Amino acid sequence: MGRPYFFYLWFNPLMEKALSPFFQPKGVVVIGASASPEKLGYGVARNLIESGYTGTVHFVGQKSGELFGYPLYTNLQDVPDPVDLAILIVPTQATPQSIEDCAKRGIKAAIIVSAGFREIGAEGAALEQQCVEVARAHDVRLLGPNCIGTIDTHLPLNTTFLQPPMPAPGHIGFISHSGAFAAAIIDWARGQGFGFSRIASLGNQADVNETDVLPMLAKDDATKVITMYMESVSDGRRFIQAASEISKNKPIIALKVGRFEAGQKAAASHTGALAASDTAFNAAFEKAGVLRAETAEQMFDWARALENCPLPKGSRVGILTNAGGPGVIAADSLEHHGLVLTQLSDSTLKHLSATLPSAANIHNPVDMLASASPEQYAACLKILLQDKNVDSVIVILPPPPMFKAEEVAKAVNEVIGHWDKPVVVTLMGSTLVEEAVKTFASSKVVTYPFPERAASALAALVRREKFLDRRPPTEGQAVSGHRSAVGLSPDELIASYGIPTAPIKLARNEDEAVAIADKLGYPIVMKIASPDILHKSNVGGVLMNIQDAASLRNSHAQLMERINKLIPPPRIDGVHIQRQINEGQEVIVGMVRDPQFGPLMMFGSGGVEVEGLKDVAFCLGTLNQAEAESMMRKTWAGKKLKGFRSIPPVDEGAVRDVLVRLSRLAAEHEEIEEIEINPLCVLAKGALAVDVRIKFKGA
Amino acid sequence: MGRPYFFYLWFNPLMEKALSPFFQPKGVVVIGASASPEKLGYGVARNLIESGYTGTVHFVGQKSGELFGYPLYTNLQDVPDPVDLAILIVPTQATPQSIEDCAKRGIKAAIIVSAGFREIGAEGAALEQQCVEVARAHDVRLLGPNCIGTIDTHLPLNTTFLQPPMPAPGHIGFISHSGAFAAAIIDWARGQGFGFSRIASLGNQADVNETDVLPMLAKDDATKVITMYMESVSDGRRFIQAASEISKNKPIIALKVGRFEAGQKAAASHTGALAASDTAFNAAFEKAGVLRAETAEQMFDWARALENCPLPKGSRVGILTNAGGPGVIAADSLEHHGLVLTQLSDSTLKHLSATLPSAANIHNPVDMLASASPEQYAACLKILLQDKNVDSVIVILPPPPMFKAEEVAKAVNEVIGHWDKPVVVTLMGSTLVEEAVKTFASSKVVTYPFPERAASALAALVRREKFLDRRPPTEGQAVSGHRSAVGLSPDELIASYGIPTAPIKLARNEDEAVAIADKLGYPIVMKIASPDILHKSNVGGVLMNIQDAASLRNSHAQLMERINKLIPPPRIDGVHIQRQINEGQEVIVGMVRDPQFGPLMMFGSGGVEVEGLKDVAFCLGTLNQAEAESMMRKTWAGKKLKGFRSIPPVDEGAVRDVLVRLSRLAAEHEEIEEIEINPLCVLAKGALAVDVRIKFKGA
Repeated sequence: MGRPYFFYLWFNPLMEKALSPFFQPKGVVVIGASASPEKLGYGVARNLIESGYTGTVHFVGQKSGELFGYPLYTNLQDVPDPVDLAILIVPTQATPQSIEDCAKRGIKAAIIVSAGFREIGAEGAALEQQCVEVARAHDVRLLGPNCIGTIDTHLPLNTTFLQPPMPAPGHIGFISHSGAFAAAIIDWARGQGFGFSRIASLGNQADVNETDVLPMLAKDDATKVITMYMESVSDGRRFIQAASEISKNKPIIALKVGRFEAGQKAAASHTGALAASDTAFNAAFEKAGVLRAETAEQMFDWARALENCPLPKGSRVGILTNAGGPGVIAADSLEHHGLVLTQLSDSTLKHLSATLPSAANIHNPVDMLASASPEQYAACLKILLQDKNVDSVIVILPPPPMFKAEEVAKAVNEVIGHWDKPVVVTLMGSTLVEEAVKTFASSKVVTYPFPERAASALAALVRREKFLDRRPPTEGQAVSGHRSAVGLSPDELIASYGIPTAPIKLARNEDEAVAIADKLGYPIVMKIASPDILHKSNVGGVLMNIQDAASLRNSHAQLMERINKLIPPPRIDGVHIQRQINEGQEVIVGMVRDPQFGPLMMFGSGGVEVEGLKDVAFCLGTLNQAEAESMMRKTWAGKKLKGFRSIPPVDEGAVRDVLVRLSRLAAEHEEIEEIEINPLCVLAKGALAVDVRIKFKGA
Repeated sequence: MGRPYFFYLWFNPLMEKALSPFFQPKGVVVIGASASPEKLGYGVARNLIESGYTGTVHFVGQKSGELFGYPLYTNLQDVPDPVDLAILIVPTQATPQSIEDCAKRGIKAAIIVSAGFREIGAEGAALEQQCVEVARAHDVRLLGPNCIGTIDTHLPLNTTFLQPPMPAPGHIGFISHSGAFAAAIIDWARGQGFGFSRIASLGNQADVNETDVLPMLAKDDATKVITMYMESVSDGRRFIQAASEISKNKPIIALKVGRFEAGQKAAASHTGALAASDTAFNAAFEKAGVLRAETAEQMFDWARALENCPLPKGSRVGILTNAGGPGVIAADSLEHHGLVLTQLSDSTLKHLSATLPSAANIHNPVDMLASASPEQYAACLKILLQDKNVDSVIVILPPPPMFKAEEVAKAVNEVIGHWDKPVVVTLMGSTLVEEAVKTFASSKVVTYPFPERAASALAALVRREKFLDRRPPTEGQAVSGHRSAVGLSPDELIASYGIPTAPIKLARNEDEAVAIADKLGYPIVMKIASPDILHKSNVGGVLMNIQDAASLRNSHAQLMERINKLIPPPRIDGVHIQRQINEGQEVIVGMVRDPQFGPLMMFGSGGVEVEGLKDVAFCLGTLNQAEAESMMRKTWAGKKLKGFRSIPPVDEGAVRDVLVRLSRLAAEHEEIEEIEINPLCVLAKGALAVDVRIKFKGA
């Protein structure tokens, strides 16, 4: 599975070693173990024993004696070797001392189950900070506080207090920012019949966060898919780096919540206004190859498919059904999820025709009719899988009127195992398909109650395949410009990165304006130059199509009159004079620096209507040509560059180049918070930045 | 519940009487009843008996004798009174004769269960047609063929062959174009714990279709919500008429499938190209107040809420949870579904603060913490329901760590019943919440396994409330124009409906062009006039900004040279000359006639890029001002009419007026297939149709 983990920049072997006791302890001590069943300290002790953990188990409690047949110590220092993980269920106030005790006993990893820290306010936050300081001082790593701990179903290990039984062993890893959500999902999964490999509940993340835990699932052989319930990210760039490396080998699916909290921040540019905080997360997940699920159900629907199915070579799907209606639903869903209802090959049609009654529909979706026998299901599925036009199959099985669903399941199961193409099953119903659900599950065939969910899962497999298939980014040219923006105008700065600008000159008065215009050539655009006016066109501060010197003088007078009427009166530096470009296409190119993820690039339809049309796409980080290209293709503005009806084609390559260069500029100038070129005028050959706006940090 | 049904134009009491035996027969005969358990004729006989149907049951089979204790006749004519419904399970070929036999015996309603008709090809279609002819000749109404019949859980009655037991009695009516889908849903519903009132499977709809069946559910007191699985519509306009009347009293939810079959039809206008066949269905459902569900799961999630909850007065939602994570998911989902996370009143905050521990979050989403007791759940729910800022509540219940979920359920149940505000419950988990699911169900409180689905259901309630709250359409002015389009130019026709046009004149040669332009005034637009060129700008057939006679002559020469180079050479009538309007905003207004639903109106961002930007909205039928307004508000083009940044506001009212008038024109000119005004130039006062294109039927 690729390179050894110590190659990764975001992780090092020392850290790996420090965190390993959370999932692979040699010995565990429960501090605050209790014999009273209503206490959390009882639940943790019970689960640790019942989980079948084969390391050593120790209990520390208030009274000495025995618990579940093990000695109960009153002093941690009396606990014998081996012990390298502590589970703390002690009063909030006593936690810092308890961490110190752990360090004294040589325990360098602690799960703090107790709540009452940062989540309850300032006092709790101070106590949490104290825990962190004690831990740092003694090289102790903390999981929590306010968490439910870790589970490894294969080791096995259960450090939680959750109601037994443990989740069934499976191959889905699960990291959760919410303990309650994790508890609910564990119980729900039980009803759905799927299991987990490793689970980590992170709580307040005083120390260990989601990116720290990721490698513990990534390097676990039992974990085939990683699922994440995320409410935030602790260090955006480190997360992207880690997830990007891991997702090369294992799929990661994230359910990121908390959109409603983002609110609307004040933005200095269109780019800033259009980039909701969620946009950055979308871009981050895309960059890192993380599949973003919209709902919890969807996350685990996808995870089950990724756990159990081979990846399809393409997006062409065959549908096999014994009834028209569900087949139509499935076909609709394919389109909705960007998959293709494949055209079956002639040879497939011939074979299907020989296998099925004449009333059957042998074209995709293949409807075998209600009379379809287990043998017909199996034979037709085999025929579909043999077709080179078929990359994957959805088998649909409503309660068959003339056979038992489980008989069909058995027959279908035998076919699926022999093919390296994914087959997902839609098993519709409840009591009539109960046995069939179990039959499929026993062969690791994934089933969904409705065709829509089966199609969504297949689409996730296709996205995963496409991600893996993505060629390594072509290295961009080594673009670089002025490392210091001090004293440079926006135009000069971007020009230093090789982005051509339409020369723009400041004229302090009418005569200077005329002199500059005569030199640049007409027609001319004149814009008010004022540090107080950001959106010039809003105040009528832009005059266009000025054809000669006389009109220019006239326009200058008009402009000044208009601006001087504004209340409060803005400071006026003069006017900016620029040659007007009346050809080509206008687009917007921008950057806004996300506090978590860094530079977020934007491309789209420009002009004053950019916020209304919302025809924009985003991408995170320093772009290569392929990423720039992909952003452009997502928008109408980008597609239009190739020409459309009467609109002639323009220089796409020049736009890609500007995007790449601007992203390099953003990477090298941390002091810039937002940049926007609007419009970037794209010509038959080349592109010109006509209006450039830069917002510096703190400005 | 409103007007008596015989008021409805789309339905009459005679028809109602003719169809009533399908759900309220006095006596039922099974023709083709069988004692062999593997035969459908056995299943139907068994279900009819086991359903508890209290009317008279008769069996006709091949051999005389007894079946389930009833006499088995060999001749239908021997069956005694009362009998008004026949269920036919006879060989396909024998069906027409069997229908005739029914008529002879005085039976005027027959359910044809047998398959092998239209669905298998031409031969079957001919046989089906024969059935219809026999039935028409004798005034017999047919359900099917190729259907599973009807169920009424309250009467009770079960005419299907489906595996028992019957669905549980409930208040959801269900009409299905697919028998297999109906069978699967019935079994699935059993597992989900909800029931049905009346179910009809329509099969091939040789006679009775979805619109015929609708009133049988609408007038059924036990049916509170109507759900429909639709693959098509038999008569679009009649369906809209029927559904519009019924939805005033009962909610209708439709799952319409078959999008992928639509394909892309050739269109003569942008409007035609943008209106996918599904667009018309969306517009039809909106017009008729039908809620369109995206998935089967969603349809029944909504139906259960509509069955059991009062409607909310608004979209402000309170969330009550014992854990942060699921609360955040719920809050996100509200936004996604267009609902509002409400701001709680000061008095609510005060009361919550007094009820909950200080670490709890008393702001919405209200997080009572994991320690929340049944009493706290009940008390806080009551406080939320008392708040005038709260229109509805989502209660979230992951397995509570310190109490039993069913205890919480009991406490919450007691509160809900006392309020006229909807409360939906998210009950997360499986075995740990099993008892709680039952407790809630027994009190008719709806539960969902995830917050996203609860939010979606609440949103459906809000949409239903908004639909009922919609004021009756204000009557439009009695606009009318030329009833005959014969001999009129597009401009003349729309002008006759009071839509102002920018005068456009045909000039057959250069001299005529100059003469016309001198009269209209400069600047001028010149467009090629050719019956062979539909998209003029695609071929460079539009020249703009012509400032004087000299330029005009020059442009004319250029234009002719360019057009004459086209291969094949188009016929040329000359050029169209029009005064160029350089102010205002340009929009597109169009109509395309849907074969099922009639005129489909479009409004949006115009120009050549209309298909790229896709900033358009649709509405079906003859518009009133409110509908026109609502279309406009859905697009950026419509919002922008009010002015945006430097773009000055223009005459919105004029656009509304054009939409209303154009829809009237479409209604009165069935011979017109597509009309498009692009652009409609909207000025500070008034609007001018600058380019009008009309496509006639068969043209």
